[in-house]
Amino acid sequence: MLTAPDTIEYFAVAHGDMTDPFDDRISTCQGRLEDGDGDCLILGPGPALTYLAGVRESPSERHFLFVIPASGTPTVIAPAMYAAELEAAPVDRFRCWDDGDDPVAILEDTIADVGGPTNGDDYRILLDDRLWTTFAQDVRSIAPAASYGLASTVLEPMRLRKDARERSTLRAAADLADRVSMRLRQRGERVVGTTERELAAEIDSLLEREGGRSPAFDTIVAAGANGARPHHRPDDTVIESGDPVVLDFGASVPADLEAGEALYPGDQTRTIVFGGEPPAGYPEVHEVVERAQRAAVDHVEPGVTAESVDAVARDVIEAAGYGDAFVHRTGHGVGLEVHEPPYIVGGNDRVLEEGMVFSVEPGIYLEGEFGVRLEDLVLVTADGADRLNTTPMDWQP
Amino acid sequence: MLTAPDTIEYFAVAHGDMTDPFDDRISTCQGRLEDGDGDCLILGPGPALTYLAGVRESPSERHFLFVIPASGTPTVIAPAMYAAELEAAPVDRFRCWDDGDDPVAILEDTIADVGGPTNGDDYRILLDDRLWTTFAQDVRSIAPAASYGLASTVLEPMRLRKDARERSTLRAAADLADRVSMRLRQRGERVVGTTERELAAEIDSLLEREGGRSPAFDTIVAAGANGARPHHRPDDTVIESGDPVVLDFGASVPADLEAGEALYPGDQTRTIVFGGEPPAGYPEVHEVVERAQRAAVDHVEPGVTAESVDAVARDVIEAAGYGDAFVHRTGHGVGLEVHEPPYIVGGNDRVLEEGMVFSVEPGIYLEGEFGVRLEDLVLVTADGADRLNTTPMDWQP
Repeated sequence: MLTAPDTIEYFAVAHGDMTDPFDDRISTCQGRLEDGDGDCLILGPGPALTYLAGVRESPSERHFLFVIPASGTPTVIAPAMYAAELEAAPVDRFRCWDDGDDPVAILEDTIADVGGPTNGDDYRILLDDRLWTTFAQDVRSIAPAASYGLASTVLEPMRLRKDARERSTLRAAADLADRVSMRLRQRGERVVGTTERELAAEIDSLLEREGGRSPAFDTIVAAGANGARPHHRPDDTVIESGDPVVLDFGASVPADLEAGEALYPGDQTRTIVFGGEPPAGYPEVHEVVERAQRAAVDHVEPGVTAESVDAVARDVIEAAGYGDAFVHRTGHGVGLEVHEPPYIVGGNDRVLEEGMVFSVEPGIYLEGEFGVRLEDLVLVTADGADRLNTTPMDWQP
Repeated sequence: MLTAPDTIEYFAVAHGDMTDPFDDRISTCQGRLEDGDGDCLILGPGPALTYLAGVRESPSERHFLFVIPASGTPTVIAPAMYAAELEAAPVDRFRCWDDGDDPVAILEDTIADVGGPTNGDDYRILLDDRLWTTFAQDVRSIAPAASYGLASTVLEPMRLRKDARERSTLRAAADLADRVSMRLRQRGERVVGTTERELAAEIDSLLEREGGRSPAFDTIVAAGANGARPHHRPDDTVIESGDPVVLDFGASVPADLEAGEALYPGDQTRTIVFGGEPPAGYPEVHEVVERAQRAAVDHVEPGVTAESVDAVARDVIEAAGYGDAFVHRTGHGVGLEVHEPPYIVGGNDRVLEEGMVFSVEPGIYLEGEFGVRLEDLVLVTADGADRLNTTPMDWQP
């Protein structure tokens, strides 16, 4: 059942007198393009656009593109119906189009305007990694002889290290998830008898009540044998006495900006038995995952590789005999995306740097029995790691 | 404030003994490919994948692809952690990969297996219109000499005309929106004094209580001058006495399927003054939009073009002197996407056919004053149009 909150308060995290980062980011991006990464970068609605311009829109069938040349004026091409909302955006040049206009012609004109395909074969366009293929095909039809790459070549190195504003917003998002986590623990045995779907709705309501803008991703509540499926969706399964319940959630929190908007997610997982006796073997499995999680976090510091963090967690779980039951990577970066680089996974030799933020979330999944996953977000500091989540790992509420 | 529902019931629309449509759709798709549209179709998570296979997943950084050759066995490439959820999916061949594996190598092998790029220049690959560019670039790196088109060439003609199951699911979604609309009217003056955000949360709660799976899109509540922005997001604006309030919402409703899952949206707009005297000129503007909406729906029948429906609505509004204030197209198709073809817009000479379903939603937006939008979904029948929404258009609650 949903809980009716008394008041809903939305908040932004205060950062003192910081100025908005967008002008600097666009300059850095253009600098990297000029240094040879490409001639032009084209973004659609999505996290890259939010990062560079504070514009937060969902992709849709309407052409909404941000064209950033190595030199020249960056231009947003947008449906006219969004014009009013875009007034506050920190971008100087807009070209709006009405339904019935031809946005591809506007795109062609804009690309030509910034020195586009006249350069012929030597022209290199970097496309938003998330751009829908329908829009990418439009760009390719305009510049068929250009070479194409991904915008992440330029943007990923920028986005990997979080600035002070991003760090404090991510801290606030982690704190928020922690507060909700503690409230769930306080309910203890009263959770027994509700369905996964009801508990998920209640978590979403608590996330909002604590000040989150919205859940950062679909809240996972997976009871008993459902916990053995890492991406189980909450259903009508009733939480029984003794069921281990995997709880994986977080809310989006807005950064404090003068203009534009940017949301950063919380993401925390605990596995709790709200009442009764857990299944045989459960306490031991939980202890193994807890140990793996701690060992991995302890290993984090600038200079070690992402894959080595994964290996540390995996070694603990393999040594305990559960190697085959740890079916996913150890973690993922968080920022404007809930999943973004660095991925903490075998084969990723990326070296960790101060300012990176990612999850450390090993798990053991026993089909037909139960699952355990434990997750905190960590920030790489100058000489180690700072856990952003601080609530207990215990399986007892 | 959120209203706590007594019970939340999720329902699927019953269709008697219809068999699932996926095998037929995949056969039709392969037939069209064999007829020359392309050699291979590659989909990512999204509505096209749901249409062909009943698999409903959000796009993510993990490679999740459906490869459908003109002849041969269609293959889903998916992260192993989804394997359990995919067991029920009506697809015969899965190739799962673990974190740390190379999914691009699996994709290459799969494409080769179905007669891929050995065919050289003559090989044509159709990519999901919504596929993220990062995955499209992977395909292009495997088959750089192939030619590329969009999956919609094959799939759009299939998806445009809704089958009996889709029609009844869309009817159920429209009924659900209608029920919520009537409940809002019943509240009358009690709505005055709440904020847009509170009312939007209440609408979302009512949509769920009436049996919707989730809101089909971000619910729009736009009071007073906010109504002049067609895509205004609900904020802390208090609904005052006399404010016209634009209410645009709908819930997703699942089709009744043996295996797999498919959700269809409701989408309805009314503009209501819940209490007090409306602004000067408002009743007249509302009457113009109502007349435009009725004229456009009356015009719908097989054989007329999409743009002619737009023109009929626009003519009414222009004749009344508000042409510049109707800033968007008249409508959009609905199906597995809330916005999909046919688009009811100037320049679209697509001929309407029986079985198409789309919105008819003219509006007048007066900056600084108010906005009016009125929207019903309509189904093209053998000799006209069937309105799926049936609640009153009046602005009085």
